[in-house]
Amino acid sequence: MALADRWLLPEGVQELLPPQARRVELLRRRLLDLYQHWGYEQVMPPVLEHLESLLTGVGRDLDLNTVKVTDQISGHTLGVRADITPQVARIDAHRLRESGATRLCYCGSVVHALPAQPLASRNPLQLGAELFGHSGIESDVEVISLMVETMHAAGVKQDLSIDLGHVGVFTGLMEVAQLTVAEKDRYLDILNRKALPELSDFVASLQVEESVKSSLAALPTLNGGAEVLVKARELFADAPAQVLEAIDYLEQLAQRIALRFPELDQYFDLSELRGYNYHTGIVFAAYTPAFGQAIAKGGRYDEIGRDFGRARPATGFSADLKTLVELSSDVLQTAQQVLAPAEEDSALLAKVSQLRSEGVRVIYALPGAEPASECTAELVLRDGEWVVIDL
Amino acid sequence: MALADRWLLPEGVQELLPPQARRVELLRRRLLDLYQHWGYEQVMPPVLEHLESLLTGVGRDLDLNTVKVTDQISGHTLGVRADITPQVARIDAHRLRESGATRLCYCGSVVHALPAQPLASRNPLQLGAELFGHSGIESDVEVISLMVETMHAAGVKQDLSIDLGHVGVFTGLMEVAQLTVAEKDRYLDILNRKALPELSDFVASLQVEESVKSSLAALPTLNGGAEVLVKARELFADAPAQVLEAIDYLEQLAQRIALRFPELDQYFDLSELRGYNYHTGIVFAAYTPAFGQAIAKGGRYDEIGRDFGRARPATGFSADLKTLVELSSDVLQTAQQVLAPAEEDSALLAKVSQLRSEGVRVIYALPGAEPASECTAELVLRDGEWVVIDL
Repeated sequence: MALADRWLLPEGVQELLPPQARRVELLRRRLLDLYQHWGYEQVMPPVLEHLESLLTGVGRDLDLNTVKVTDQISGHTLGVRADITPQVARIDAHRLRESGATRLCYCGSVVHALPAQPLASRNPLQLGAELFGHSGIESDVEVISLMVETMHAAGVKQDLSIDLGHVGVFTGLMEVAQLTVAEKDRYLDILNRKALPELSDFVASLQVEESVKSSLAALPTLNGGAEVLVKARELFADAPAQVLEAIDYLEQLAQRIALRFPELDQYFDLSELRGYNYHTGIVFAAYTPAFGQAIAKGGRYDEIGRDFGRARPATGFSADLKTLVELSSDVLQTAQQVLAPAEEDSALLAKVSQLRSEGVRVIYALPGAEPASECTAELVLRDGEWVVIDL
Repeated sequence: MALADRWLLPEGVQELLPPQARRVELLRRRLLDLYQHWGYEQVMPPVLEHLESLLTGVGRDLDLNTVKVTDQISGHTLGVRADITPQVARIDAHRLRESGATRLCYCGSVVHALPAQPLASRNPLQLGAELFGHSGIESDVEVISLMVETMHAAGVKQDLSIDLGHVGVFTGLMEVAQLTVAEKDRYLDILNRKALPELSDFVASLQVEESVKSSLAALPTLNGGAEVLVKARELFADAPAQVLEAIDYLEQLAQRIALRFPELDQYFDLSELRGYNYHTGIVFAAYTPAFGQAIAKGGRYDEIGRDFGRARPATGFSADLKTLVELSSDVLQTAQQVLAPAEEDSALLAKVSQLRSEGVRVIYALPGAEPASECTAELVLRDGEWVVIDL
């Protein structure tokens, strides 16, 4: 590697410099305090742990996205976490072992072996909250509300919208369709890419009843406002009970969210299957026109704890704090900055300590170095006393 | 890996659960704010970057201690950082490129391939501050003072002591002694282990003048109070100027520190060579009897930027925030916790929002789940109004 390249970061890896790092720090505090006020206790799982712990119950995508290393002590394969959610599920299942509802939150770095989309960050600063031990609608309402409050606290309010989906619609339709594994994978791939032109050829090629064909063809068109649920009820009138229950659940959920956030735009997307191998109930995401991807996402994943030997209902969301800061319009409040001379005088030292303890930033001038240009005032000796004078 | 082992963390890797994680969070904030008030700007370098960037100018110890992986995009070798200091030096040299003094601070996870000592953490939460662009005593005084203030802010004050050393004493003696590389390595090894019994045999075996032998034999005994400097001046009267200059420098430094912290115990250790391949001037560390190792350490490392193509004077310190929290006697202030019923009532929702925005923790009861046991009050409807009643 050439000298000039030593300071280049790997592709897709970012770092935060002043003043952006401070903005991230302050939003981190505001959001973790918000979660604290909602009863969510902070945890700090490690950056690196056994690969099997990181990948338990989460499906193949996360496996491909996890950087792996061999532990020099044990010879076991370790992973650099690509997602903190499974770590928090492990903590709920095995470290805390509470029987009632457990609310946890976290903020930490994750590493993606490859970027999720072209130009996406490979080292997001993942922030999130998870609620374990409750399977009713109240816990889904709570985490979606907390996600919306997170966006508001980050300054994303005016243009915020949320998308709601339910994995139960897809799994119910699959029960009837009885596709082969290859067919199901192909269908999922088409849904994920929203590749409608390919869909009609694919559906026509299937050896299933006409009613199933029309359901499979219709699913990816079912996104939009409340009319989507009406249309879905008609289309899926003969589908298994779980499909209709999922639609009812989404309707109730949307009503409860609307009671809390009347101005929030809510959309439905019945073909949204984010983390299909991982989520078991609702899935949801937050959007703003200023950013091309979801700015926060989550859902219910009741089965993840099973592989840790303790299945617990779970629902939660996460976001990349760095993205939220970029969207945030908060201006960093610069405190007064005072320049202090480099003198060995106890009265000066005492004055500097006092100012700093009051929250004033005091920077010592260093002999021979250029003075800090950002100072707006300085400490000078007047009539035997150190006083702050504007520059 | 057996089911029961999936939740075990790798040896030497720790995670933080409630309430300890919150204590770490709060101390993190207090210390980063302290650095802010001293003029140190926060940076957030990535957990993973090119191995050559991580290891530039830092010597072999860090290489052995760095977990390595191959980048799936470029095929380059990346490293999981084992130390944030070289990252901050890279940021100073290449990202910021300021000509005057630059003050930076950070807090983040690092990973050690092997524990530094038996039972040491392999994933410390490294916190530190660095001052670039100034080579005079004022910057060394400033970073040592900030390290002492860090310990005070963490609640370590009564029993705090600091150790001061200077790499110039060793390098000056080596200039005269003209040892072979093998002899120098052996001597360094004996110094690092403070293996005095081996020392006399080793020194006797050298083909050097008697005066050099007595200097080499005396060096590891030169630790203790101010009398050490007096003794060193006598012993090294004929040594190169840089040895005596280093001793003078330590004396001046100690006087300036004493002016700022009259009750602080200061010790000298002239054979302390922490990171000999990395530090170029003073080295220092903070100790408390409650912990067997240094709780913070640092020094001057003027050469590290050279390998990034821009040598800048540098001095700074770092500590493991997790260790500081363990030593801290701070008690977590528990805010009032209020239980709210799971009712879809706008007046209740508004009351809950208001309480939370005032800093009160409000936890919703979830139907069917055990109530949160830590609540001390609850929201009840009295005469058409939601009020907080002690439980």
